[in-house]
Amino acid sequence: MSSVAQPAPDPAILERRAEIVRGLAAIVGERWTIADEDELRAYETDALTAYRQVPLAVALPATTDEVSRILAFLNRAGVKVVGRGAGTSLAGGALPLADSVVVGLSRMNRVLALDTANRTIRVEAGITNLAVSQAVDHLGFFYAPDPSSQLACTIGGNVGMNSGGAHCLKYGVTTNNLLGLTVVLMDGTVIELGGEHLDSPGYDILGLMTGSEGQLGLVTEATLRILPKAEGARPVLFGFNSSEDAGACVAATLARGILPVAIEFMDRPAIRICEEFAHAGYPLDVEAMLIVEVEGSPEEISDQLERIVAVARETGAVHVREARTAAEAAAIWKGRKSAFGAMGRISDYMCMDGTIPTGRLPEVLTRIAAICAGYGLGVANIFHAGDGNLHPLVLYDVNDPEQLAKAEACGADILRLCVEVGGCLTGEHGVGIEKRDLMRAQFDQVDLDQQMALKSVFDPAWLLNPAKVFPLDGRPAPARAA
Amino acid sequence: MSSVAQPAPDPAILERRAEIVRGLAAIVGERWTIADEDELRAYETDALTAYRQVPLAVALPATTDEVSRILAFLNRAGVKVVGRGAGTSLAGGALPLADSVVVGLSRMNRVLALDTANRTIRVEAGITNLAVSQAVDHLGFFYAPDPSSQLACTIGGNVGMNSGGAHCLKYGVTTNNLLGLTVVLMDGTVIELGGEHLDSPGYDILGLMTGSEGQLGLVTEATLRILPKAEGARPVLFGFNSSEDAGACVAATLARGILPVAIEFMDRPAIRICEEFAHAGYPLDVEAMLIVEVEGSPEEISDQLERIVAVARETGAVHVREARTAAEAAAIWKGRKSAFGAMGRISDYMCMDGTIPTGRLPEVLTRIAAICAGYGLGVANIFHAGDGNLHPLVLYDVNDPEQLAKAEACGADILRLCVEVGGCLTGEHGVGIEKRDLMRAQFDQVDLDQQMALKSVFDPAWLLNPAKVFPLDGRPAPARAA
Repeated sequence: MSSVAQPAPDPAILERRAEIVRGLAAIVGERWTIADEDELRAYETDALTAYRQVPLAVALPATTDEVSRILAFLNRAGVKVVGRGAGTSLAGGALPLADSVVVGLSRMNRVLALDTANRTIRVEAGITNLAVSQAVDHLGFFYAPDPSSQLACTIGGNVGMNSGGAHCLKYGVTTNNLLGLTVVLMDGTVIELGGEHLDSPGYDILGLMTGSEGQLGLVTEATLRILPKAEGARPVLFGFNSSEDAGACVAATLARGILPVAIEFMDRPAIRICEEFAHAGYPLDVEAMLIVEVEGSPEEISDQLERIVAVARETGAVHVREARTAAEAAAIWKGRKSAFGAMGRISDYMCMDGTIPTGRLPEVLTRIAAICAGYGLGVANIFHAGDGNLHPLVLYDVNDPEQLAKAEACGADILRLCVEVGGCLTGEHGVGIEKRDLMRAQFDQVDLDQQMALKSVFDPAWLLNPAKVFPLDGRPAPARAA
Repeated sequence: MSSVAQPAPDPAILERRAEIVRGLAAIVGERWTIADEDELRAYETDALTAYRQVPLAVALPATTDEVSRILAFLNRAGVKVVGRGAGTSLAGGALPLADSVVVGLSRMNRVLALDTANRTIRVEAGITNLAVSQAVDHLGFFYAPDPSSQLACTIGGNVGMNSGGAHCLKYGVTTNNLLGLTVVLMDGTVIELGGEHLDSPGYDILGLMTGSEGQLGLVTEATLRILPKAEGARPVLFGFNSSEDAGACVAATLARGILPVAIEFMDRPAIRICEEFAHAGYPLDVEAMLIVEVEGSPEEISDQLERIVAVARETGAVHVREARTAAEAAAIWKGRKSAFGAMGRISDYMCMDGTIPTGRLPEVLTRIAAICAGYGLGVANIFHAGDGNLHPLVLYDVNDPEQLAKAEACGADILRLCVEVGGCLTGEHGVGIEKRDLMRAQFDQVDLDQQMALKSVFDPAWLLNPAKVFPLDGRPAPARAA
């Protein structure tokens, strides 16, 4: 178990477990209520596996109305709620509390409406990210945010964490591609935010809900903006003798007004591991590699690639390889997209998620290497360089408590560095449990009070995913549940 | 004076006017404090000239620190504050109250930092929208949101209203192009939101502030995302024998996965008025016209235009004219951008700002014509069709109280129609005073209570631009000012 403390469970809630389970079963049916200890184990962790906690029970509703009745019931009973999509959070966003009920949205996975003239699709929150793009692919559209976990992760989770992906350099993150939400508040009230239209009168509660990590309400449906697919896309690989050169190439490309769809960075350890796993044809004799993808018509692709290759050569690229065929392009991306899995085969790791101003890349990479060396830990860097969204993977042995503590301290130092250079603690993974106690590195108590006051407006008793995002001390006294 | 009621001024505040003016002068100096009745007239209205009210006084600060001291002083004194950029609001967002102080940000108009590698520019809130693009033009970049008032309107006002413009079809509105803000809260606290980086941990208060119409805090600085300019751009004109055909062309273009930079719509009255003013070469024998602009390399432009022209011909275009030269392109846009001014020369008008799902365009245009005919009023339609963002100009005589009342009722009917078909009350102009009492057409009391609770978190005494956005009845009792 990790060092970020969990609050002690409320014994009065634990005692009323049987009654709570009966209440849930009365709403969703016994088949969709999980109370058996073994079955509950499937919900004890998410992709941040260093943290584990079996919940009180799990409910798997099929409709917004069922979600509303579950929350109204649990609100009356004063029981905490943790929402869950596919459980792919790398920040422990879906980690249960011992006295909480997990509400899993995985059964709510339908496409509800599709309107290409308005470029919108209406889906239930439990649909996977990739299924959205698949549903509109034959019409020539796609849904832009593409987390590495897109095969599994759900739209509801994407909204909760404001997820990004390799292609958000050009297309933005979830909040830039979201038009409307149906949300159930903790008292069971169902609210509609936004709609099928651009903008809305009044305050932007839609935006506020996005990235709020399941703390303000549970998202049950979403209206997403779909975009026309480009005619074609092609990646090019660049190898450099130093991370500094690669960082300079990123900065110079963007400064010249070239905006690729994606600029992905890998350092030497990452290149080696991915190449062994995916046989993508990555160069093994370089210190850093960039995958730059451009899209458009064949002429536009050629024109952009020519300019990008010129910038790369000026900034010291020693290896240049354009994908000549669809198979080569797929291999290049397969290596990148399988990076986290490939890394997991050879070592446990903590995937950090800081963001920095792009111009500071070379300096920050050098300092990350020094920080990790100071703890005696290995590090591999694989990240969205165009956005300045870093993903240093700090390597350690999860079964060695001393190494775990070192990895956590090392990760915290890296994120403090991101804040110090004008960046922030998270790019797309959220705060969750992982960075909860680091929030003070970014915000003072005035800032935190302001944010927590907003939570109290939506969830006065602090029952929704309460142990996350904000440090446990310095919180407002929760109101009594209604 | 119009029919939307203003709250009665507080006589105790009016009595203390001299003392309040002295307090302001002690902060910004006498030169930048306006208390003379004649000079105050310059601040009595904005672009919604049907509403006029001279404020108690005006303060023109030069720094964030001065804004902070002004708000802290007025908060202690319990005096209401209306923030003002250039006063170009079409919704009366900058309309003063008799017992309010206007805080004008026009002196704060500097560029503070520019970082092309990070694609960001840091500016003071009083800089004009166009000055931002001009500051980065020589580097090959631009700032995407482009309201028609971009020569005059300020970035602070753009943030307050979440402004858009003709090109937001491709590039989004203000909230999609904003990375960070410095905001002064009513008690004088200065907060930093976002930064130079993508995303932020915690809740999206940056997004919440955007479009909050100066009711949560006063924006003094902003970090904006700048974008590389396309290699070139070219508009094409299409004429149609009916608005239905033009609407069908918009829907079909988007449904085929073509995403132009802009799709602007004009109906017959609008075409005639703009052509007389700008001599843009618009066809005078059609019922509706579209300006569709595409951008990219010459090949990409040609390719896109070919596909769009094919769609237009299929949907009944009877007039097709591609701009062949830069001069022709400029003339086409000059006609569109001068539309509101040209209209103002021949008639007073109310510019409505509803948004609808794009697919409902033909039906809604037919019903708008019927609504206006029912009131015996003329209407001209000029709007961002690709976004479904309508701008019907309801024509009336501002000096005829009966016509004013009819125009207001007619405008309200049009906006209710937008809500009825699944759209909303505003696209980019905000609610302001104009649509305040129409908010109940979109939101029930539960929704409004939720939004107003957020205002109370930031501004417990409801001193910031309080007479706007929310109907005067059904508000929470304000806390006493600290």
